[in-house]
Amino acid sequence: MTGAGRDAGGPAAEGEAALIQRFAVSCAGQRHDVVRGIGDDAAVLTPPPGQRLVACCDTLIADVHFPSDASPDAVGHRALAVNLSDLAAMGATPAWALLSLTRPDADAAWVDGAARGFADLASRYKVALVGGDTTRGVCSLTVTALGLLPAGSAGLGRDGARPGDGVYVTGTLGDAALGLRIWQADGAAPLAPDVRAYLEARLLQPEPRVALGQALLGQASAAIDVSDGLAVDLSRVLGASGVGATLDLTALPASDAFTRAGGQLEDALYGGDDYELCFTLPDGVPLEGVDGCVPVTRIGTIDAQPGLRGRDAAGHVASLSAGGYDHFGQAKR
Amino acid sequence: MTGAGRDAGGPAAEGEAALIQRFAVSCAGQRHDVVRGIGDDAAVLTPPPGQRLVACCDTLIADVHFPSDASPDAVGHRALAVNLSDLAAMGATPAWALLSLTRPDADAAWVDGAARGFADLASRYKVALVGGDTTRGVCSLTVTALGLLPAGSAGLGRDGARPGDGVYVTGTLGDAALGLRIWQADGAAPLAPDVRAYLEARLLQPEPRVALGQALLGQASAAIDVSDGLAVDLSRVLGASGVGATLDLTALPASDAFTRAGGQLEDALYGGDDYELCFTLPDGVPLEGVDGCVPVTRIGTIDAQPGLRGRDAAGHVASLSAGGYDHFGQAKR
Repeated sequence: MTGAGRDAGGPAAEGEAALIQRFAVSCAGQRHDVVRGIGDDAAVLTPPPGQRLVACCDTLIADVHFPSDASPDAVGHRALAVNLSDLAAMGATPAWALLSLTRPDADAAWVDGAARGFADLASRYKVALVGGDTTRGVCSLTVTALGLLPAGSAGLGRDGARPGDGVYVTGTLGDAALGLRIWQADGAAPLAPDVRAYLEARLLQPEPRVALGQALLGQASAAIDVSDGLAVDLSRVLGASGVGATLDLTALPASDAFTRAGGQLEDALYGGDDYELCFTLPDGVPLEGVDGCVPVTRIGTIDAQPGLRGRDAAGHVASLSAGGYDHFGQAKR
Repeated sequence: MTGAGRDAGGPAAEGEAALIQRFAVSCAGQRHDVVRGIGDDAAVLTPPPGQRLVACCDTLIADVHFPSDASPDAVGHRALAVNLSDLAAMGATPAWALLSLTRPDADAAWVDGAARGFADLASRYKVALVGGDTTRGVCSLTVTALGLLPAGSAGLGRDGARPGDGVYVTGTLGDAALGLRIWQADGAAPLAPDVRAYLEARLLQPEPRVALGQALLGQASAAIDVSDGLAVDLSRVLGASGVGATLDLTALPASDAFTRAGGQLEDALYGGDDYELCFTLPDGVPLEGVDGCVPVTRIGTIDAQPGLRGRDAAGHVASLSAGGYDHFGQAKR
């Protein structure tokens, strides 16, 4: 109902098309398989023969998923990054993206900044922005990412973890949760500038683990990206696979900045937004092809007994709540 | 930043997954080419060998694109319909969809209604809902629709109209604009119930012209769907093709309800939301394969001279403004 919000009888110029065009210009020329890109009713793409298509979408809303005073570069980066992270968790190779942008105004400087952040990341992963939509309202960005898998591959699911498999995670945990706390404290925390900068960057500009995800294809038995917190995301894998896991709580990888900023075990277990990959690997399968990717750490083992447990430094094992963040769920642990 | 809006340290249950699951249940089982659907980080799909992929996305926001008191069935229908209309304008065959749903609350009855409206339309076009995201905020729905084109086809673009081509439109024009006015008057307009019901349905539950779009492949020189108004949408085709057009203003197709409700030429030219197809056909190309589809009407001819003109009953020709609706543009005609 394009008319509901307009002035009576008010037709209009091409401001909307111009807005998405700012993104299109920044993200053009990435791929030769785009038959028609932005500027028609829909994009026309040529998937490579035999390959499978992988598709996901995620919405970011100002003051829910990012601070409304975050730099537009970071917002543009993040909108694409969280979707590339989903593709990475499937082992897929990113190819194309569509963006639906909602803004309260036609702030060209903001849009240019967001387009720059989006385009920089898109360029690194050879992702072409092929479609979009622009509307007026509370600032939000919905990105659909499309990727590819080799012929016959079903990608990395959540349902393949088996008892005895090792549980692994990429990078470090809890950085983004600390970054959020620091951002919200707005300078009140007495932290070294480099610690603050590192943790805020981990929150605002997550790096999707695309190469690692691709390397895990055919090796990992299950994978997920850590968006809502290790405990809740790993519990999704456990539920889908019908298994449980025991984590070595002394093994959770922490960054130097996390330690210096006083990060706690709870932050590593329940903090969201790290966009690392958590995956399981059958015992005896060597982890190959991950050289040059982000470091990985073994943090536990899959058990037949359902549920998530943690073993502390003293060897005591206790149940862990699934925990994590849900927009509509009840808070409980 | 999943943490920005949550209670301090508040992890959560699976309410978010449950919400999108209501949609998934309604829309499951449509297709055999879905390797992984909702419930993993991303969907895995098997495009038919050699076919091209068509992708588009559109966001609907409450009180901008639909009245917030519209029935959830209508909202669910409309969110998918406007995207299938974009696929239709390319001549594509719909296949899969992703939905990002934002709601101020976890109103299960509303979500079930929207899922029903979405699923009814999806079922008719054999569209599988394969992915989704749920967040809390001002009610909005962003749908990404994915369709297919025969090998080698670039689909129906906007850039192929040539001087001498006929200009055609499907169905009737202006119904949705009247429907909006009636909805906003909320019963104040003295109209027969059947007229009111027809026009409101045209506004709230548009029917994508999928079969007609498919029939136009290889015949039409250009096509677009009429979402922002005939004048503005046709002007987009003219601009992309580097041509102009003269419309026969006496030929614009009107429904009986439109006439009975006092619809004017301006409503037919500038009213949005009809989701009919406007297309151009080279002179001498017979319109084949459209039996059983919606009726089509020739409304004008493409000229070499840029711009949009109208010829009235007396034979006078005058310029028409591009007109139409733009979320960020200046109102001008």
